[in-house]
Amino acid sequence: MAANPAPHLARRPRVVLVDLAGVLHVGEQAIPGAVDALARLRAAGLPLRFLTNTTRTPRRTLVAKLQRMGFAIDEDELQTTPHAAQRLVRERGLKPLYLVHPDLVAEIGPSADAPDAVVMGDMGPHLDYAQLNAAFRLLMAGGAFIAMAKNRYFMEEDGLSLDMGAFVTGLEFSSGVQAEVVGKPAPAFFHTALAELGVSAADAVVIGDDLHDDIGAALAAGIPAILVRTGKFRVGDDADAAIRPSLVADDFADAVTRLLAVG
Amino acid sequence: MAANPAPHLARRPRVVLVDLAGVLHVGEQAIPGAVDALARLRAAGLPLRFLTNTTRTPRRTLVAKLQRMGFAIDEDELQTTPHAAQRLVRERGLKPLYLVHPDLVAEIGPSADAPDAVVMGDMGPHLDYAQLNAAFRLLMAGGAFIAMAKNRYFMEEDGLSLDMGAFVTGLEFSSGVQAEVVGKPAPAFFHTALAELGVSAADAVVIGDDLHDDIGAALAAGIPAILVRTGKFRVGDDADAAIRPSLVADDFADAVTRLLAVG
Repeated sequence: MAANPAPHLARRPRVVLVDLAGVLHVGEQAIPGAVDALARLRAAGLPLRFLTNTTRTPRRTLVAKLQRMGFAIDEDELQTTPHAAQRLVRERGLKPLYLVHPDLVAEIGPSADAPDAVVMGDMGPHLDYAQLNAAFRLLMAGGAFIAMAKNRYFMEEDGLSLDMGAFVTGLEFSSGVQAEVVGKPAPAFFHTALAELGVSAADAVVIGDDLHDDIGAALAAGIPAILVRTGKFRVGDDADAAIRPSLVADDFADAVTRLLAVG
Repeated sequence: MAANPAPHLARRPRVVLVDLAGVLHVGEQAIPGAVDALARLRAAGLPLRFLTNTTRTPRRTLVAKLQRMGFAIDEDELQTTPHAAQRLVRERGLKPLYLVHPDLVAEIGPSADAPDAVVMGDMGPHLDYAQLNAAFRLLMAGGAFIAMAKNRYFMEEDGLSLDMGAFVTGLEFSSGVQAEVVGKPAPAFFHTALAELGVSAADAVVIGDDLHDDIGAALAAGIPAILVRTGKFRVGDDADAAIRPSLVADDFADAVTRLLAVG
């Protein structure tokens, strides 16, 4: 039990927004205690949303993978950046050039014949110079730039790995065009979840392993945030001068125990 | 003839440092008038150095290509960034992980078994996520970061193309480690040429198509610089608020005519 909960968690949240990779699992492995902790959250009657910046995997595949690990997660509870990007493309009537992982093509649909916007996901090992150069040329010709995410790195089973933020930043550097980021840390990505759940920012809590894109972003959007020391967490993240989590927990199980202990 | 030469070209240079791609040629095509203009420079008895940030091609292949287009260029006159990077690796006793184009492997040699420094060139269409991720992990483990160049883009026969600066910037973003750039705009790259030729910065002139990495860099090193309106030159480059070329010429032939006209 938290002897001294941080001020922002002075009252129990009404909903919980959970990051996936690095919080519930790393690669194909559930983080110890996480399956049971999620069940405890459910038993406490707290509505949940899972917010992920992962863009390598279709939503259905991601849910199936989580269920295989033992997590009881419904597809409707999973908020992904490809879906958010698709909505944005529709709302603005953009003609997208999609740079995405082959696995995502069926879910996101085909690129337009005469595109006017680069819409970029994580191509993972399918990163390809010709596609990046096509995107660069579209940006130089005045195209819009939408990035599903801009994360620096993520945790894989064999260590930290380079995330798509590297390639978003690279295209920004060469083209001089700044990307609009759809996923975390964009406040809109959190606000979508809050609106669907019908709660205000102060009534929610975010649990994440990314100091900047989970914790800093949530706090900036007015949402209390718990940093876990798993996944991409690195020594020193819990002593950052600029970003002060509402609470730091050893892992997801510890985070759940402590937030349920708040009266 | 220049009616009103810029102050820095008030006297005739003693040596000329020439950029290659976009100045003498684009792809496999010599820029009109450039072959003849180079012959005129030689006839005037001016020592020359060709300074290129191109890292996709071995030096010998590059010289052969230029000779095929009709340029009289000697291998010893060609200063390339892979050679400069190799010298730096030797001087510092680094164990390099080379990220380079397959064509460059024979020239640059093999990567070390237990590398302590990322040494990055332009992989061109051979850009590969696994190699970039290996570089990222080495940087996160404290490795040094040496980039042969950090150019934004270059001109190919079918248009502007994404250059390796995008991927250097991307690795910097994700790892938090800043690269040391070997080629232009590093002052040392110009100084090497000046030292070999035995002249001071004020006695040389640079001719290039890259406002930042040729012109701005040369001026910062104290070398007068002529911007040509070919290659990657874009409308507005000749009216930049911060970087003022000593002279702007239509192309290499015009640049040579005007610098030989200076008394």
